[in-house]
Amino acid sequence: MDVIEKVFSKIGLEFDAEVGAYVHKKTNIPLTVHYDQEKEELVLLDQTKLPFEVAVWRTKDWREAGDPGIKGMIVRGSQAIGCAAGYAMLLAANSFRNLKENRFTEKMAEAASFLDATRPTASPLRWAVELCMKAMRSALRDGGVEEAIEAIRETADYILASDLVMNWYLRQEGKPLISDGDVIMTHCNGGSLSSSFGGHALGMIEEAYAEGKDIMVISKETRPRSQGFKLTTWELNRAGVPVVIITDNMISSAIERFKVSKVLLGVDRVARDGSVANKIGSADIARVAALYGNIDFYYATSYSTIDLDTDHGSSIPIEERSIEEVTYPYRLEAQDKRVKGILSGKSLGEWPPKEVLVHGKPGKGQIAIYNPAFDVTPPKLIDLIITDIGVFAPQQIRTLTEEKITQIVRERLEKQGVTVPKHIISSRD
Amino acid sequence: MDVIEKVFSKIGLEFDAEVGAYVHKKTNIPLTVHYDQEKEELVLLDQTKLPFEVAVWRTKDWREAGDPGIKGMIVRGSQAIGCAAGYAMLLAANSFRNLKENRFTEKMAEAASFLDATRPTASPLRWAVELCMKAMRSALRDGGVEEAIEAIRETADYILASDLVMNWYLRQEGKPLISDGDVIMTHCNGGSLSSSFGGHALGMIEEAYAEGKDIMVISKETRPRSQGFKLTTWELNRAGVPVVIITDNMISSAIERFKVSKVLLGVDRVARDGSVANKIGSADIARVAALYGNIDFYYATSYSTIDLDTDHGSSIPIEERSIEEVTYPYRLEAQDKRVKGILSGKSLGEWPPKEVLVHGKPGKGQIAIYNPAFDVTPPKLIDLIITDIGVFAPQQIRTLTEEKITQIVRERLEKQGVTVPKHIISSRD
Repeated sequence: MDVIEKVFSKIGLEFDAEVGAYVHKKTNIPLTVHYDQEKEELVLLDQTKLPFEVAVWRTKDWREAGDPGIKGMIVRGSQAIGCAAGYAMLLAANSFRNLKENRFTEKMAEAASFLDATRPTASPLRWAVELCMKAMRSALRDGGVEEAIEAIRETADYILASDLVMNWYLRQEGKPLISDGDVIMTHCNGGSLSSSFGGHALGMIEEAYAEGKDIMVISKETRPRSQGFKLTTWELNRAGVPVVIITDNMISSAIERFKVSKVLLGVDRVARDGSVANKIGSADIARVAALYGNIDFYYATSYSTIDLDTDHGSSIPIEERSIEEVTYPYRLEAQDKRVKGILSGKSLGEWPPKEVLVHGKPGKGQIAIYNPAFDVTPPKLIDLIITDIGVFAPQQIRTLTEEKITQIVRERLEKQGVTVPKHIISSRD
Repeated sequence: MDVIEKVFSKIGLEFDAEVGAYVHKKTNIPLTVHYDQEKEELVLLDQTKLPFEVAVWRTKDWREAGDPGIKGMIVRGSQAIGCAAGYAMLLAANSFRNLKENRFTEKMAEAASFLDATRPTASPLRWAVELCMKAMRSALRDGGVEEAIEAIRETADYILASDLVMNWYLRQEGKPLISDGDVIMTHCNGGSLSSSFGGHALGMIEEAYAEGKDIMVISKETRPRSQGFKLTTWELNRAGVPVVIITDNMISSAIERFKVSKVLLGVDRVARDGSVANKIGSADIARVAALYGNIDFYYATSYSTIDLDTDHGSSIPIEERSIEEVTYPYRLEAQDKRVKGILSGKSLGEWPPKEVLVHGKPGKGQIAIYNPAFDVTPPKLIDLIITDIGVFAPQQIRTLTEEKITQIVRERLEKQGVTVPKHIISSRD
């Protein structure tokens, strides 16, 4: 029984032919990434189709795995991208199987840089690609191309198995904090869909609900990409969890109307001072909730988002994204209103018109669109940061060290039978 | 020179043939409602077409004035609806001109109840219709149908002239509070477009900008109807004011990035305790801004929204609106993704699917959508309520009486040459 089978069985993932993916029997949530060892294909739950259509996307081609697989966001969420990247490296290795060792190494380096570039800010992506390269180089020192391919396979399996096991720990850490009767507000998709399976803020809610706790979730739309409307509601609904959808400007109103008891969100990065960068809007919820005085505010995340090299939240760089994300629904609306005859053929097809739109600070007669991906919540507004290596008050984050983290992770993985493949021993350092 | 000409000239409104409406020369903002006395037509700036197309909508037909004019939101904002309703009554009177007095009265009563029902919650609508009926009844006591029509014309003109003059006072009250260099966050459209002209939160900003103050405005999208994205940016852009568009979840981020100095919003209703009901999301901004400690939080409004009969903010009834408003962009997105081949023909055309969607509290496997129109900001979070009868701290609202308000309004109107038409003397009581 290989490590993947062992972990799938421990967690309770079984292949579901209707979905075409492994599904968690307890919560009904599918795995977002797996590898079909028989057909040698990467299999992704196609998140560009959700919530309108449930389908998997399969490929044998490492370039396709990179784009559209990763770049086109068929898979999303940094942990899940890491898992997909490992198997994309395996697809590359398979396709170079008949090359001589030197040429194989050369082509693998090319594939690695191609894959690295598909999502520039996802650090587990680069970590996974580098881990595979390291295993390959080590295997080539002892054997040939076939040994290198097997080392990459072991590594990719290890990356997926680790994510699954650590998410299981995260759920065990978080579940005691969820009470029967809780009304939990969430934002974006810090969910199973943002991990391989069962991750972050939503995984623990779905499992607690399946175990009999009465929970209702308030899911914020999360403009401009609307992951809250599209992904979180889909995922929670599959697990049966009752959901109320609100738009992003209904925080106070929903807190009062539904008596919200907790806020529980995913994380993009935790700084050493206990600040948390997460999807734009998280800090607004924290501030509004703080003034009510009786709402617990929690973040839930993988240890890999703890960035001890960043001292303060204020030094976390904030990505600004394309303004098309903001204007997209209005382009569709203009189109729709033309079709319906509400607008004439002379009407603008988009707003704001290009002539007045500027980047940066607008001047007289100009309009800018601001589209930051994240904001930063100050530690004082956070009660707890729930992680797969323990639950911390924000001020406890500075007591952690890289060594401590690595040790807890290794112990937890080994306890569940996931051992570091011999070719990448000490690769996390 | 009749009262309308006098007021247009005082304020600086001139007919602009390109727009087909009167335009304020100083700010470039058009009047939303006027009456073409020559053609006997109601003229509305068509707000269903904004920001994609600038066009006026004209009608001779009182039923059309009611629907689509008022009901279909070609005109919106309670004050502007009141102005349009007065002229809709005049159109009705014109069309019944050849009837005998009894039949005329009967038909006018029918038109009045039809118009009353076009927007059930807009109180200036019912006030305007009733004022016209009162003038009609009074005129019929002294004369015939022709006299009644003229009394309604005078009344409709009085309603528009009053709104224009009181908005002028509102701008004078507010402008001293706006400083050179201000960065002002706003939400929804508490703008000129929500009044006849120059009203509420944006009118004073546009005029202060035209007078040379350096101002930048942060306009929040305001899902689900997106008046902030569509109307506020259009209106401010016409006046040249630099605007930054943000989605509703970027309050903290925009405050920090752009150093917001003030929040300035329109109002739906002011309760006696100084609470303010306004577009959903207003209270979230108030709470987030409060935690920064250095941001002025102002509401700007017409005296007519002060409701001394409502003791507390908590007793203001909150309208819940159709969930179609929330799901509309996603129906368009599903369509668009089918056309582009991202989704198959078997995909859902909408999310959430009907089978799982419920009203009220969702149970297992169910999803609800919450769509309240307003929220209530507690008085402690408001610095000032700027009105056309003076600037008040929220706690000063309870010192007002109906008599005081009526007296200030009458004095201000008379000072600008707008006198109550003889047939409706004492009609505000």
